Amino acid sequence: MPSPPTKNLETFDNPEPGRDYVIRIRVPEFTCLCPKTGQPDFAELTIEYIPEAKCVELKSLKLYVWSFRDEGGFHEAMTNRILGDLVAATAPRFMRLTADFNVRGGIYTKVIAEHRAPGWQAPPPVQLP
Amino acid sequence: MPSPPTKNLETFDNPEPGRDYVIRIRVPEFTCLCPKTGQPDFAELTIEYIPEAKCVELKSLKLYVWSFRDEGGFHEAMTNRILGDLVAATAPRFMRLTADFNVRGGIYTKVIAEHRAPGWQAPPPVQLP
Amino acid sequence: MPSPPTKNLETFDNPEPGRDYVIRIRVPEFTCLCPKTGQPDFAELTIEYIPEAKCVELKSLKLYVWSFRDEGGFHEAMTNRILGDLVAATAPRFMRLTADFNVRGGIYTKVIAEHRAPGWQAPPPVQLP
Amino acid sequence: MPSPPTKNLETFDNPEPGRDYVIRIRVPEFTCLCPKTGQPDFAELTIEYIPEAKCVELKSLKLYVWSFRDEGGFHEAMTNRILGDLVAATAPRFMRLTADFNVRGGIYTKVIAEHRAPGWQAPPPVQLP
Amino acid sequence: MPSPPTKNLETFDNPEPGRDYVIRIRVPEFTCLCPKTGQPDFAELTIEYIPEAKCVELKSLKLYVWSFRDEGGFHEAMTNRILGDLVAATAPRFMRLTADFNVRGGIYTKVIAEHRAPGWQAPPPVQLP
Amino acid sequence: MPSPPTKNLETFDNPEPGRDYVIRIRVPEFTCLCPKTGQPDFAELTIEYIPEAKCVELKSLKLYVWSFRDEGGFHEAMTNRILGDLVAATAPRFMRLTADFNVRGGIYTKVIAEHRAPGWQAPPPVQLP
Amino acid sequence: MPSPPTKNLETFDNPEPGRDYVIRIRVPEFTCLCPKTGQPDFAELTIEYIPEAKCVELKSLKLYVWSFRDEGGFHEAMTNRILGDLVAATAPRFMRLTADFNVRGGIYTKVIAEHRAPGWQAPPPVQLP
Amino acid sequence: MPSPPTKNLETFDNPEPGRDYVIRIRVPEFTCLCPKTGQPDFAELTIEYIPEAKCVELKSLKLYVWSFRDEGGFHEAMTNRILGDLVAATAPRFMRLTADFNVRGGIYTKVIAEHRAPGWQAPPPVQLP
Amino acid sequence: MPSPPTKNLETFDNPEPGRDYVIRIRVPEFTCLCPKTGQPDFAELTIEYIPEAKCVELKSLKLYVWSFRDEGGFHEAMTNRILGDLVAATAPRFMRLTADFNVRGGIYTKVIAEHRAPGWQAPPPVQLP
Amino acid sequence: MPSPPTKNLETFDNPEPGRDYVIRIRVPEFTCLCPKTGQPDFAELTIEYIPEAKCVELKSLKLYVWSFRDEGGFHEAMTNRILGDLVAATAPRFMRLTADFNVRGGIYTKVIAEHRAPGWQAPPPVQLP
Ligand SMILES: [Ca+2]
Ligand SMILES: [Ca+2]
Ligand SMILES: [Ca+2]
Ligand SMILES: [Ca+2]
Ligand SMILES: [Ca+2]
Ligand SMILES: [Ca+2]
Ligand SMILES: [Ca+2]
Ligand SMILES: [Ca+2]
Ligand SMILES: [Ca+2]
Ligand SMILES: [Ca+2]
Ligand SMILES: [Ca+2]
Ligand SMILES: [Ca+2]
Ligand SMILES: [Ca+2]
Ligand SMILES: [Ca+2]
Ligand SMILES: [Ca+2]
Ligand SMILES: [Ca+2]
Repeated sequence: MPSPPTKNLETFDNPEPGRDYVIRIRVPEFTCLCPKTGQPDFAELTIEYIPEAKCVELKSLKLYVWSFRDEGGFHEAMTNRILGDLVAATAPRFMRLTADFNVRGGIYTKVIAEHRAPGWQAPPPVQLP
Repeated sequence: MPSPPTKNLETFDNPEPGRDYVIRIRVPEFTCLCPKTGQPDFAELTIEYIPEAKCVELKSLKLYVWSFRDEGGFHEAMTNRILGDLVAATAPRFMRLTADFNVRGGIYTKVIAEHRAPGWQAPPPVQLP
Repeated sequence: MPSPPTKNLETFDNPEPGRDYVIRIRVPEFTCLCPKTGQPDFAELTIEYIPEAKCVELKSLKLYVWSFRDEGGFHEAMTNRILGDLVAATAPRFMRLTADFNVRGGIYTKVIAEHRAPGWQAPPPVQLP
Repeated sequence: MPSPPTKNLETFDNPEPGRDYVIRIRVPEFTCLCPKTGQPDFAELTIEYIPEAKCVELKSLKLYVWSFRDEGGFHEAMTNRILGDLVAATAPRFMRLTADFNVRGGIYTKVIAEHRAPGWQAPPPVQLP
Repeated sequence: MPSPPTKNLETFDNPEPGRDYVIRIRVPEFTCLCPKTGQPDFAELTIEYIPEAKCVELKSLKLYVWSFRDEGGFHEAMTNRILGDLVAATAPRFMRLTADFNVRGGIYTKVIAEHRAPGWQAPPPVQLP
Repeated sequence: MPSPPTKNLETFDNPEPGRDYVIRIRVPEFTCLCPKTGQPDFAELTIEYIPEAKCVELKSLKLYVWSFRDEGGFHEAMTNRILGDLVAATAPRFMRLTADFNVRGGIYTKVIAEHRAPGWQAPPPVQLP
Repeated sequence: MPSPPTKNLETFDNPEPGRDYVIRIRVPEFTCLCPKTGQPDFAELTIEYIPEAKCVELKSLKLYVWSFRDEGGFHEAMTNRILGDLVAATAPRFMRLTADFNVRGGIYTKVIAEHRAPGWQAPPPVQLP
Repeated sequence: MPSPPTKNLETFDNPEPGRDYVIRIRVPEFTCLCPKTGQPDFAELTIEYIPEAKCVELKSLKLYVWSFRDEGGFHEAMTNRILGDLVAATAPRFMRLTADFNVRGGIYTKVIAEHRAPGWQAPPPVQLP
Repeated sequence: MPSPPTKNLETFDNPEPGRDYVIRIRVPEFTCLCPKTGQPDFAELTIEYIPEAKCVELKSLKLYVWSFRDEGGFHEAMTNRILGDLVAATAPRFMRLTADFNVRGGIYTKVIAEHRAPGWQAPPPVQLP
Repeated sequence: MPSPPTKNLETFDNPEPGRDYVIRIRVPEFTCLCPKTGQPDFAELTIEYIPEAKCVELKSLKLYVWSFRDEGGFHEAMTNRILGDLVAATAPRFMRLTADFNVRGGIYTKVIAEHRAPGWQAPPPVQLP
């Protein structure tokens, strides 16, 4: 019996908390409803984060994404809300959420929001040629 | 009855003013008139901004873009003018406008202009590998 | 003083009427008005033809395309009408018009119409490996 | 007040019934439910047809596509059923439906079905070099 | 408890046997062993078929593909063998298998094999412009 | 001392006259003058041919292409003239010339012309899957 | 101890002689010498064939390709010669060799040659939509 | 009567001197002569600059580019000379010239040169995610 | 007789220890087992490093990658473990491992982890235009 | 009579020594021998440098690259050696050599090495939006 959609984000223990490493997750199948017209909106989400103690579990993430199928929200608010939920569940060192919405009225919109843990510093990046 | 073209840019309240997040809007359907020959010019606009108190409303943006259909202007002046209008309407922390004009005489031209609110500092970027 | 938009398609004599050769013209800058909403529509036109006695002159084609800037019409009717005008002006052996309209309501539409001169037969194509 | 999803496909009169011309419609935003698991499926639909007396109206097509949001069905059956509905509404000379489903279990699936009106013959194609 | 790899290909009834429609399945994750060296080989399989009475069930196909993980075989023989198994399970009107093997020794190899049911004729293709 | 531009196309003996094989030559660096304005035009030429007794020598082809640098001509006439020169020099079984001119006035133009030797028949193409 | 370059093409028995199936081999690393200047030439070879009794063995093919490293030859002659060697070794039902030579003097050249066994007929291709 | 090629670069007043904005111009149709062989060279130029008091006028730029059609010069010297001319005409805050020359002898060459006005500092770039 | 899979990573002496240079290795053929379901997982690995005294030997790397074919592990743990093995074998100045896993459940995952030798500083990068 | 391969790199005087400008040279046709097996290796070289008093002459570079055709060497050593030769010949302010080797054993390898003249500082890069 399959799992129903849920706002419950499950986590597991970060297997390498000693390292600032990156997990990048791409979800091309996000859909919600336009709060003005009630019609479907579509977007591709990208989650990039450096975990602290917890990593987001992918199956629960899929059910979480599914749970927006019958909810409405403006692009800017929806993106910040999802970032907030993911941060609440995992308390990461750093997290960036990119929501790339499909064209409407000839206009393409993307919203990108970030969270940084207080006191956390990004390690100086090594730029290889 | 549809809305007519208008220079009136409407806004709504930034739902997450506590965060420096990015809204990126791509408008492939900009057309105006060449001030020298009166013939149509075409461009793709990209607006990238970090909102302060207000976000630009997308339907009014579409009507605003439409309002240039019968106006003329040089590439450099047009780009700076549109940036000025968007800044006047939204008073953002940061805004960049890129106007990518179609080829004329075998030459491709792009103009990119930015506005930074006085006293605003870009947060140090996190460059993930 | 530049030329105004016009429905007048000018032609010149086909320099090689003894051959069934192909002229393919791509016009990425077509814009007209939606007959329902009055708002701008955008499309890319592709004209492919085998001339008989006349070829279409490119500058007059540009002015002809421009002349639709303030006219309305449904995609299917507009495409057939433009093909009709081009056929009336040049009486080609064969002509195909492809109109690739920009996305509206999440839906992309393309209309393709052809004219064949009565009695004209396409030469058997040589398919090279 | 926006229109609700509906199975009602509206049509308008073919403006050029004397010609075998092609209308190609791409719908990247189709979503339905998996009949086994109840979880969302996503696909991109492409409709290609040569109209007889009627053309499909695009806004009603959008609402029709939306109406599958809460319905389940296997890929093969779903594709044939949508083709059946479109043929019933428009009685075209020819119609092809391509449904390109998103990857599941590491496997990509596409289903392509066609309808030809009895007695209709495809015009011999002109293959331009 | 997950299903183990198996050579058992399951099928379901073709929902539209009255039509010659196409099912195209892409499997990027095929791996087997080289019969000479015992080292892993990798390929992407593409299955295209027109079903008669039965369609191949996708989950069993995944387990079938998995079952080659510890088997060896030359490219040409492997491709013909998999086509044979799929034909035996589904008895299609037409089936084509393309196996695109990864580069070895600077050489890229692809093998393409087809099965046609005796007496079956491909419907004349409609080539739309 | 380098060779000057010349209209002289040199040839060499076809090393395999028993076979209908194809030679495809792409020349991205063609430039001539616009007969109306005297300004430079640019195009990419593609020559595809099945030789009879002679093949075109590539260095002389380069000098021949160079010889148009200071000549004017309309797209349609220029393409047919170059094809004529190449046919006169090599008397091929089949030759196709494609001239893809750079955009002018927002319009892209391509001209494609073919020559077939009297009595020559294209071998039935083998279309591999 | 590695194998030296050799003109010896080895073969193995076609595992499925009852079927007209296709083997397509791409060799991006062909190099020989220019017969005029003695300088290196580079090309990418593509071999496509339908085997009769024998298939070409890939390791010997690699050594065969290597054997041209110090030999000179014109593009057209070289392509026909390699096709001849491959046909002599495998006696296929059909074989096509494409040699895509790197640009020289601003000119790109490709040569394509085919062999068909006497009496062999290509099976009518099934063109799937 | 069209304008002849000329070394005269015309300018117009920068419409927004209060801002450090960017103008990027791409010229795919540059051709000159090789100083060694006298044969044509081809390159694509890209000009990127931040204007001070003057902007380069595009029609005069086209005639300026044309003026090199019969002149010779080595890649490195030619690029620095054109940059020098553009700087002399416009006295920009910053200018970068990229010249991407077509392949010769199997070797692709690009030359990139920059000018910075004494005392001018690049504004710290805002890197948006 | 070919070599079996092994966890043994062999090395050779860095031929240029005086320089901070980069070796970038891409391995598209990594496969392991999902620890939850036992089913195969696929990923593409990219290893980028600046060697100290030792470089990783490529043949042993291939056998090392092969050794995961029958092992299970979560994406995050697997990536950190492989990085750990490579660091243990080569003690590099810097190493980054990127593991790009194939889509599962409509979700794409990538994990990127880095090691820096204590006291090592990245040389300031030279960013060429 | 053509020039033979040679290790002699010729130079010419930098025409603009007052500027830190960049010359980027791409050589897709590098081939040498594998020191273990004696079989051919292939790579694409990219040379990027800021000249001091001398620039490398392109024809001699071609002959230099050719001179490796019969020499063996490991990827890491070969790249550092070629960089050393180029630095010895031109004594540049900065030079980077990238060697992108063709796939072997399913593994792609790239080696990147840099030279900086003692005391030379890269000018702070201007990053244009
Ligand atoms: Ca999508
Ligand atoms: Ca999208
Ligand atoms: Ca554009
Ligand atoms: Ca389009
Ligand atoms: Ca467009
Ligand atoms: Ca898809
Ligand atoms: Ca693959
Ligand atoms: Ca592949
Ligand atoms: Ca070009
Ligand atoms: Ca072009
Ligand atoms: Ca290559
Ligand atoms: Ca090539
Ligand atoms: Ca180029
Ligand atoms: Ca992959
Ligand atoms: Ca992937
Ligand atoms: Ca490569």
